[in-house]
Amino acid sequence: MKIMRLGEKGKEQPAVMVPSGRYYSLLPLTPDVDGEFLASGGVDKVRHALEAGSLPELEGVAALRVGPPIARPGSVVGIGMNYAAHAAESGSAPPEIPVVFLKPGNTVAGPFDAAPIPPNSSRYDWEVELGIVIGREASYLESPSQAEDCIAGYVTANDLSEREYQLPGAAGQWTKGKSLPGSTPLGPWLVPAGEIDGGNLPLRSWVNGEPRQDSCTSELILDAATLVHHCSQYMRLEPGDVILTGTPEGVALSGRFPYLQPGDVVEVEVVGLGRQRLGLFRAGESG
Amino acid sequence: MKIMRLGEKGKEQPAVMVPSGRYYSLLPLTPDVDGEFLASGGVDKVRHALEAGSLPELEGVAALRVGPPIARPGSVVGIGMNYAAHAAESGSAPPEIPVVFLKPGNTVAGPFDAAPIPPNSSRYDWEVELGIVIGREASYLESPSQAEDCIAGYVTANDLSEREYQLPGAAGQWTKGKSLPGSTPLGPWLVPAGEIDGGNLPLRSWVNGEPRQDSCTSELILDAATLVHHCSQYMRLEPGDVILTGTPEGVALSGRFPYLQPGDVVEVEVVGLGRQRLGLFRAGESG
Repeated sequence: MKIMRLGEKGKEQPAVMVPSGRYYSLLPLTPDVDGEFLASGGVDKVRHALEAGSLPELEGVAALRVGPPIARPGSVVGIGMNYAAHAAESGSAPPEIPVVFLKPGNTVAGPFDAAPIPPNSSRYDWEVELGIVIGREASYLESPSQAEDCIAGYVTANDLSEREYQLPGAAGQWTKGKSLPGSTPLGPWLVPAGEIDGGNLPLRSWVNGEPRQDSCTSELILDAATLVHHCSQYMRLEPGDVILTGTPEGVALSGRFPYLQPGDVVEVEVVGLGRQRLGLFRAGESG
Repeated sequence: MKIMRLGEKGKEQPAVMVPSGRYYSLLPLTPDVDGEFLASGGVDKVRHALEAGSLPELEGVAALRVGPPIARPGSVVGIGMNYAAHAAESGSAPPEIPVVFLKPGNTVAGPFDAAPIPPNSSRYDWEVELGIVIGREASYLESPSQAEDCIAGYVTANDLSEREYQLPGAAGQWTKGKSLPGSTPLGPWLVPAGEIDGGNLPLRSWVNGEPRQDSCTSELILDAATLVHHCSQYMRLEPGDVILTGTPEGVALSGRFPYLQPGDVVEVEVVGLGRQRLGLFRAGESG
């Protein structure tokens, strides 16, 4: 099943798309797809309700905006340089210790929303990533296998990054390049962990239809469960939180491609989790 | 006036302490001290209600837990090395570009809560700081003077930091040392910006009664309005967000003092914003 949130920004309603292509409202089960719903066995509730035929079918979905498939997270956790080939193109060896950073929760955007380039930015870059959605509190977990139980599902993510702001040199924290408005498009779908193997998903990106990244989550240095276990040693992960697992090679930072410009169209896809399509515009000008 | 939140964790109720030492409930005005309340002119509402004598007096306050004076923020933004003497003791020159990092909102704790040291930590450190509470959305502000209008008030903060996790070397992001459960005690009070000069407040810390830090916010390299203006270029600050403005010299990282141990008592105070007192315990053992 593909869990979605449909409607205007801030007024999204929960829905599910089933393999037949039909859509059903989840409003009889929950007001939103959020941490509380996931932690209360929300995915099983959807499954049972679909089997019982108790959900109202949604019509006219094509006219609705597709929002991010999870309500605003408490924490958006990023993982740096988790594909060896991307570390190399960034000028680094793969890190011996996982690189962890945070993005503000208010950076989350829908998968087809117009995407603002910051007013004075000239190095805005794309990053296709597998996103993990947390379904159960994770704090000081004992093992990666324990972490498996804390993963509710997966989403396609774009970790849009301004490289000049991100990499300022000495004592440089990445925050300023990773916090820009609209810089974390998620979705279109949340697919439950039990229905997909997060460890073997091709992921790709395109700019104006030209291929950029092309890899597979099997190339992740640290897999999803290892990342959840690791992060739980340093922060209390909560249901509804999102971990962005890192991006493969093929970004503009490599020097092989130009950075994003107003008018560009960026597409990112994790196969099975859906494809995003973002039109870029300059913040402060009409989008 | 001193705005507070009183009661068990997660069930705090809004209150105000006035110069006479009396406490009044803010429940007739708002269910909580949060971004929505601050953005809707909450401070003025409190002032008018106090003048009108329309708030019920609270009795028995001494028996209540003091919570953080602001509900869980969307973002907790940290500023690194914003006092020259602290940069020097950390082995760095003052940064040419402000160092900005994020902490998870769920690290916020009350000013007298027992404070967990992570299970395997041996380098847990204190940092007294002036905290800024945002009262109005701040995005791409044009000037520091415009930023002044976005500051609702100030709080005492302790940016508890695990140095081994924070400073892992190459590509080191500070996140893992800055995200630990309970690592952002705030309060006891939120004092409105119009009632105190945030730029001239002595701030100090003690461990087991022995002095550690002793400085003044007049020594900040970048003042509060400059920081809000700067951060707004890189992220959308929202009402209720908190910016921790950096810590002065006198932390354990300097090598002059031992790191925190279970049983230690840490006090931090920004004069006018109240003093915190934390008892340290080892996470996973009884607190």
